[in-house]
Amino acid sequence: MVAAARQPPPKILLTGFEPFDGSAVNPSLQAAQALRGRRIAGHQVVAAALPTVFGASLTALLALLEQHHPVLVLATGQAGGRPAICMERVAINVDDARIPDNAGAQPVDQPVVPGGPAAYFSTLPIKAMRAAVQAQGIPAEVSQTAGTFVCNHVFYGLMHLLAQPRWRGVRGGFVHVPWLPGQGDPSLPLEAIVTGLRAALAAALTHAQDIHEAAGALD
Amino acid sequence: MVAAARQPPPKILLTGFEPFDGSAVNPSLQAAQALRGRRIAGHQVVAAALPTVFGASLTALLALLEQHHPVLVLATGQAGGRPAICMERVAINVDDARIPDNAGAQPVDQPVVPGGPAAYFSTLPIKAMRAAVQAQGIPAEVSQTAGTFVCNHVFYGLMHLLAQPRWRGVRGGFVHVPWLPGQGDPSLPLEAIVTGLRAALAAALTHAQDIHEAAGALD
Amino acid sequence: MVAAARQPPPKILLTGFEPFDGSAVNPSLQAAQALRGRRIAGHQVVAAALPTVFGASLTALLALLEQHHPVLVLATGQAGGRPAICMERVAINVDDARIPDNAGAQPVDQPVVPGGPAAYFSTLPIKAMRAAVQAQGIPAEVSQTAGTFVCNHVFYGLMHLLAQPRWRGVRGGFVHVPWLPGQGDPSLPLEAIVTGLRAALAAALTHAQDIHEAAGALD
Amino acid sequence: MVAAARQPPPKILLTGFEPFDGSAVNPSLQAAQALRGRRIAGHQVVAAALPTVFGASLTALLALLEQHHPVLVLATGQAGGRPAICMERVAINVDDARIPDNAGAQPVDQPVVPGGPAAYFSTLPIKAMRAAVQAQGIPAEVSQTAGTFVCNHVFYGLMHLLAQPRWRGVRGGFVHVPWLPGQGDPSLPLEAIVTGLRAALAAALTHAQDIHEAAGALD
Repeated sequence: MVAAARQPPPKILLTGFEPFDGSAVNPSLQAAQALRGRRIAGHQVVAAALPTVFGASLTALLALLEQHHPVLVLATGQAGGRPAICMERVAINVDDARIPDNAGAQPVDQPVVPGGPAAYFSTLPIKAMRAAVQAQGIPAEVSQTAGTFVCNHVFYGLMHLLAQPRWRGVRGGFVHVPWLPGQGDPSLPLEAIVTGLRAALAAALTHAQDIHEAAGALD
Repeated sequence: MVAAARQPPPKILLTGFEPFDGSAVNPSLQAAQALRGRRIAGHQVVAAALPTVFGASLTALLALLEQHHPVLVLATGQAGGRPAICMERVAINVDDARIPDNAGAQPVDQPVVPGGPAAYFSTLPIKAMRAAVQAQGIPAEVSQTAGTFVCNHVFYGLMHLLAQPRWRGVRGGFVHVPWLPGQGDPSLPLEAIVTGLRAALAAALTHAQDIHEAAGALD
Repeated sequence: MVAAARQPPPKILLTGFEPFDGSAVNPSLQAAQALRGRRIAGHQVVAAALPTVFGASLTALLALLEQHHPVLVLATGQAGGRPAICMERVAINVDDARIPDNAGAQPVDQPVVPGGPAAYFSTLPIKAMRAAVQAQGIPAEVSQTAGTFVCNHVFYGLMHLLAQPRWRGVRGGFVHVPWLPGQGDPSLPLEAIVTGLRAALAAALTHAQDIHEAAGALD
Repeated sequence: MVAAARQPPPKILLTGFEPFDGSAVNPSLQAAQALRGRRIAGHQVVAAALPTVFGASLTALLALLEQHHPVLVLATGQAGGRPAICMERVAINVDDARIPDNAGAQPVDQPVVPGGPAAYFSTLPIKAMRAAVQAQGIPAEVSQTAGTFVCNHVFYGLMHLLAQPRWRGVRGGFVHVPWLPGQGDPSLPLEAIVTGLRAALAAALTHAQDIHEAAGALD
């Protein structure tokens, strides 16, 4: 009797960004690479690097979606100056670049998607993810802005894609991670970032609905 | 021959908030009061206090609109911990209160307006306002988040009102001001805040279109 | 033939402080306890808690010196708001308490030791310790002030003791550690603090002279 | 009867530093220049620029002392990143330069004065000065470190000079001022810095003894 074909586990897509702004490293990319191929809550992690480039990053993201058909997408990026792993709540429809991207483009007050809605909310359970990271003894927060550079660009573009019928049921969101030691202050050791992202992904996969917990900002 | 009746100048509405979170003062309210009745670029400032209360703040704001018919509305609030006067870019459709408001309510992940769009952008020229404040030697920035407390609530509610045909042509936005000395660090002297808001209002009144100037956030 | 009596390893004294200022925990104490009894570079760690109390902390420290005769003393404390493990350079001869200590005392501009010198420098190799912590991927810095509360009090009192002929050859210093996650921002996971202190102690034990490396502050 | 010859008012020396670290301006110098020649509490302000250079700055300072015979000396410098005008409590006997000075020198762990004491305390009433600045609605603090760059170098060198019998009775100290808007965050408008320094000087001149007020740092 032949063995029944094993169903491969469903995939989750985890992206990090190429280094930018003169940095030699990007903690989001290192953390994504560290989680490549891992099993988390019965899912397999597909890890990929996105270029820190307006436009090209979204082209690459769409290709990854088409190739892997993940059930969940978590894009991650570096947030220099933040003290905690930040679950992003909302992506806004604007590119406003304080510095050029890695291809030299510096859009000012351009929409990510002309005619798109002003914003999309994450469809990941950001409060449950925060709680899961904190339970590991790692600093975590909900953030109300992903900025207006390539991180927000990818976050908005991702949510705009996932709002299309083609990707019905696929959930997505964005997480910002702090600098690594040596990049600036404050920072987190890479090991803490990797452990935190793993916990955040596990929480996202096991919570269809978010938990009820205040995590707002006064301003 | 009798003198022709003088047309009263058009009005602009400038609101500040009541103190909250245990503070005895709110710099936004003190600054608004300091500008009460002033003429700025041919307009008269109507200054008003809003309660730091979800819901009631918007009821009060609507009443002020109906009473004064301003051509421009600038709501202001206190942003403890910020180092500069911040022109807010976007209001999001969520109330998520880390602390109770002044009436004891603490909504978590509730929409400001059920069924409303995810976000509204300010219709004030935030880059021109920033430049005008900076030209006074006062620190100013564009901010990508007004938080999720009563400030964002009022900002979103204001923009939702102004999106209605009833208020066609009325522009609106939100500005956050730092603490006063003694409330915490960093802070700005009241005089600097007042001078800054006056310059911001003048710029808003004299710029139908915003200027082209990068003022984004990397994260 | 009987085995030669084994010489017990020389001791190093590692102190942490009791929680204070309303905190339920103190990372310096947790880290010291985690290193209790460990062997580091051929030495045995004696870990002890000091009360966060002016005067009594130094009485306890002197008793520990008399009891254990360590070859090196590292006192540690919590530095809320700092982003890195901080090797302290200098202790100053002043108690100036912004809040009461755990016994209710709040000295203002009192000397730690009446008639003592204005300051003592650490006799530990602070640059080598910083480099060793950083080599573990953990944020580390040299700090130019240990404050004016019980941390500086113990640091100054320790160095004043060690300057006496009675303790000739015993080296000593102070290290501040950041908050744990949940105490405030920024913070470091406990595991990173423990790993960092262990690396700092190893560097102190293996460097009789400090390395030549800039680690100053512009202001 | 001829009028009695008028005694010229006693002098106070107020120094600021040349711009450094790539900045085009230095708020300490601009503020000192703004107060040049002013009468404060019956004294006349002599304002001077010091080079941001180890050694040469102290040579210049000594020449100014010899030329003007001030009764009080306040040296000031820029403290990028600080949110308040900071009355420095203590100068330490070390030069440790994170960046080169304006002449390219970058000493590491060198004493300011070989064989000098580890530290000197300010002989100005730092608590009274802080209170006076705060009374103007301007943020002010006592600081426990003037760093290890040229600011601390001048502060230590000044106090070492004033400890000599030659300058008996001359009081001295150091004040750090924040960045100006445009240099970085946080910042203070120049007008606030000038008003603050003037108030600090008035308080120093009218308080032979300091007031009793806690202004310490927990760490």
